[in-house]
Amino acid sequence: MAGDFLLHARLEADTISLGRTDLCEIRLMNDRTWPWVLLVPRRPDIREIYQLSVADQQQLLAESSLLGKGMMGAFGGDKLNVAALGNMVPQLHLHHIVRREGDTGWPGPVWGLQAPEPYGEGELEAFLARLEPVLAELIKGVPAG
Amino acid sequence: MAGDFLLHARLEADTISLGRTDLCEIRLMNDRTWPWVLLVPRRPDIREIYQLSVADQQQLLAESSLLGKGMMGAFGGDKLNVAALGNMVPQLHLHHIVRREGDTGWPGPVWGLQAPEPYGEGELEAFLARLEPVLAELIKGVPAG
Repeated sequence: MAGDFLLHARLEADTISLGRTDLCEIRLMNDRTWPWVLLVPRRPDIREIYQLSVADQQQLLAESSLLGKGMMGAFGGDKLNVAALGNMVPQLHLHHIVRREGDTGWPGPVWGLQAPEPYGEGELEAFLARLEPVLAELIKGVPAG
Repeated sequence: MAGDFLLHARLEADTISLGRTDLCEIRLMNDRTWPWVLLVPRRPDIREIYQLSVADQQQLLAESSLLGKGMMGAFGGDKLNVAALGNMVPQLHLHHIVRREGDTGWPGPVWGLQAPEPYGEGELEAFLARLEPVLAELIKGVPAG
């Protein structure tokens, strides 16, 4: 029997809530190394994108594209990394990571590369100020297409 | 001025054509370590998913979900890794990698982990035989939703 949605404990511990969209929890990876935001659909017992209903899949994509484009604009990235891996945390979550040429780990993937470097207090506020317009739009609601 | 679509030389060299969908080239990563298939939208000058038209984004998602679900069924995976990275090859391409607990690199990401181990001839045929029903469905055409 399907239970209610509950954010996975590992995601709860590693990330900071930035609010919620129509479908997802928006979570900031607490690692100052790269701008890195997750979308976690509030659907119980979902591991893979294809397990979502078609409507939810399209909603996730619309939210992901708005978020990714906004992050790239806000942080001036060279390449966005978008990924649903879930080898460590099977609950479906979609990574959005702004990459710059020459950043830590470039051009390799960032997962498992190093221990996270948490944001300092003032640093987190400055980061969120840049992300604020995108978050506001995401939270207001994104039509699926 | 936008040119015609041309598959990036690095993708051409590292992968094997499995046909094409309405939107994408289907390419097998020539690495026997993991079942690993790319979808490459036949659109010129696109680096990010959000740069595609909304209709193309939804089409890519529909094709990706059909492919991913089919690969997981055909190869009995524990987790699908779906990702658009593009740090090495900026032309938009969407990875689909079937992961098994304890496979090479588990639970880390596979990119850059080791030099590819190309399929042997009989091996490739056996692999493709298992993928054939999914490929047939993909090539026949997938409604966007």
